Amino acid sequence: MARLVQKFGGTSVADVQKIKKAAEITAAAVAEGHEVTTVISAMGHTTDHLIGLAEQIYADPHGASPREMDMLLATGEQVSIALFTMALQSLGQVARSFTGAQAGIITENRHGTARIQEVRSDKVEATLARGEIAVVAGFQGVTESDELTTLGRGGSDTTAVALAASIGADRCDIYTDVAGVYTADPRIITEARCLPSVSYEEMLELAATGAQVMNARSVELAMDNHVPIRVRSTFMPENPGTLITHRVAAPEYTIAGIALDMNSAVLKLKSLSPISDTKPLEGVSALFTRLTELGIQTDMVMVLKREDEPTSELVFTVEKTTLPRVQQLIEALASALGNPLMQVETDIAKVSVVGRRLTNRPEVVAGVFETLNEAAIPVQMVATGDMRVSVLMPARFGRDAVKLIHKKFSLDEGTITV
Amino acid sequence: MARLVQKFGGTSVADVQKIKKAAEITAAAVAEGHEVTTVISAMGHTTDHLIGLAEQIYADPHGASPREMDMLLATGEQVSIALFTMALQSLGQVARSFTGAQAGIITENRHGTARIQEVRSDKVEATLARGEIAVVAGFQGVTESDELTTLGRGGSDTTAVALAASIGADRCDIYTDVAGVYTADPRIITEARCLPSVSYEEMLELAATGAQVMNARSVELAMDNHVPIRVRSTFMPENPGTLITHRVAAPEYTIAGIALDMNSAVLKLKSLSPISDTKPLEGVSALFTRLTELGIQTDMVMVLKREDEPTSELVFTVEKTTLPRVQQLIEALASALGNPLMQVETDIAKVSVVGRRLTNRPEVVAGVFETLNEAAIPVQMVATGDMRVSVLMPARFGRDAVKLIHKKFSLDEGTITV
Repeated sequence: MARLVQKFGGTSVADVQKIKKAAEITAAAVAEGHEVTTVISAMGHTTDHLIGLAEQIYADPHGASPREMDMLLATGEQVSIALFTMALQSLGQVARSFTGAQAGIITENRHGTARIQEVRSDKVEATLARGEIAVVAGFQGVTESDELTTLGRGGSDTTAVALAASIGADRCDIYTDVAGVYTADPRIITEARCLPSVSYEEMLELAATGAQVMNARSVELAMDNHVPIRVRSTFMPENPGTLITHRVAAPEYTIAGIALDMNSAVLKLKSLSPISDTKPLEGVSALFTRLTELGIQTDMVMVLKREDEPTSELVFTVEKTTLPRVQQLIEALASALGNPLMQVETDIAKVSVVGRRLTNRPEVVAGVFETLNEAAIPVQMVATGDMRVSVLMPARFGRDAVKLIHKKFSLDEGTITV
Repeated sequence: MARLVQKFGGTSVADVQKIKKAAEITAAAVAEGHEVTTVISAMGHTTDHLIGLAEQIYADPHGASPREMDMLLATGEQVSIALFTMALQSLGQVARSFTGAQAGIITENRHGTARIQEVRSDKVEATLARGEIAVVAGFQGVTESDELTTLGRGGSDTTAVALAASIGADRCDIYTDVAGVYTADPRIITEARCLPSVSYEEMLELAATGAQVMNARSVELAMDNHVPIRVRSTFMPENPGTLITHRVAAPEYTIAGIALDMNSAVLKLKSLSPISDTKPLEGVSALFTRLTELGIQTDMVMVLKREDEPTSELVFTVEKTTLPRVQQLIEALASALGNPLMQVETDIAKVSVVGRRLTNRPEVVAGVFETLNEAAIPVQMVATGDMRVSVLMPARFGRDAVKLIHKKFSLDEGTITV
């Protein structure tokens, strides 16, 4: 008997028929003798529908009224936990639903992208102790002062892992609409392979670079709390999927996969105020502090200083959805930034090669450049890290770049060790 | 400056455009210097949509899973308070939404038809003290042990009145899709008049007999707590509507109006166990105790005993929606009831004449019978009380009966004193 957390994403509970199917997976695990807690996302397009309502009032409701957006969006999971629990009950199970607040998901007081601070899982524990199934709303929490919050994109994964850590679950199963973690998006690369296992670190890089299987924060949380994760298919539950865990016997290094991110935008600030020795990048520092406070993540940050010019240039990527807020922020900080010229590019694909110890292997970077060069794909910006090489290019080249790089490193033949 | 509670029903917030219009009414009251708390129902058909989802799992989800139905239905108002608050903010108001739980609406632990036990309005008070608008979810509450509950049909009225009582509001304005309380349903009787005022007691009887303007429990609460209510139109906010309050100078007696209820069903239990002197109606008593526990209201209860038969017959009316649960209950109690023959009639209209001190005025009952007799409308059952005469008839005669009785008592010419 194991203690399991099962998380079902939006596509797994898109309608009542799918909810019933997912409930059968939970019931089967209980029949095998497991103690099960489930974490449920909002049904399919519910969140988009709710955002559509709010957009009839505000063009950017997230920015204009973050507290009320959380109040609004939190209803999505509340609907699905009620229906999921009824579906379990109709299968003869004893089950009980919990909002994020009721399940003790305590977050910081930041709307839209709150971080979980603590999980007070005593009610969930009591439910399990009675031999019942706990059905918990993903994506949402509550502050110490009883304000409803949401955790941002992929927040249900975070809820699942945080709960798993809190109740000491043996494993957290993330049920989704794909069979596991692939070497590249299988919708683009038909030869992409499902990885039987992947390390937390590799998964983190894949998530951070646009692989939409799991959210980075939840992988981080699993790593820190030693919660093994299994990513598996709701529609093929017999499939073992991909196990995400600490690497046991690590090879020298490995390319785990190629990620494609079409949701990034590039911001360029030109003619920034001169960098002085006493106040290096004061305005830039203020900008990034504010972005952090707003929960807006940046990626691929560069500061360029031309020898022949006194001013410098800042280039960074953010998610497209955050653009209105980022632009507003830059306008507010304009004088501190030296009234820079702002350029925004949204026609962008970010292709990332994720693996281990890439900085020691210049041949990986070289292979990427060689491939793109041969195909005459223009490269706009490159960032390399210990675990990834990310390349920005015009959006239309993204899919081809993934295909060519996947082939270049023979990922369809097995996870390679160069 | 007055302290007001404004309640907007489902038709008043049926879509985002209507929400914006309703928010303008609130903003106008604030502009006049009033302190305003609003109570909002679920948007138009939201509740029906949610029930439809649950019915894909259970034929009678209310009966099968009352706790999860409350979890599900409570999302309806949470959506509308978020949108209503955003609409107020977009008008330049400072506003803050509260779920029932956050607003301190503490209820008993009964799902689907919970009664409010206490209102802990300190958060709402603090919001008003800061000069802000509090936007509270109607229809829902929370138990001491943090379980979500709903208050049953018309529950948002109850929330509004209970809050008004708790914060010492000067008045509770119920905004709805009709102009006020009428002498009969204006959709049936074009000559029906809007009453400028009506007493709590009359309104209670009107509500109990099917007038859908306000829910009986909320009128009772207003009477007990001396909260004046004004029923008025969201779409004609300049209209004064109907004031419900204690009767100041009461005439001898008055017929306030005629109510039509098409939602009742009649249950007949024949061949009940013989009534003994030691255990009079033991099974019947058990039945009504259980109905009360389930929050199912009965009306027009009669026990008939024929001289020539040892057994008796029980006849009573309930709301049609509760029939599955009532029938199940009767089957469970069958042996205690003497295995009676059960008959259910759903083709029923209940027409009620509501007024004051009707028991002292046999001419009212006589007038009702005379009217129905002249029109050859068959009467199936009659119940009279101090404030009403209710008549059951086949559903198809309901509208005509209301028209004829309305005319008989000249209600289009003014509230009459016989």
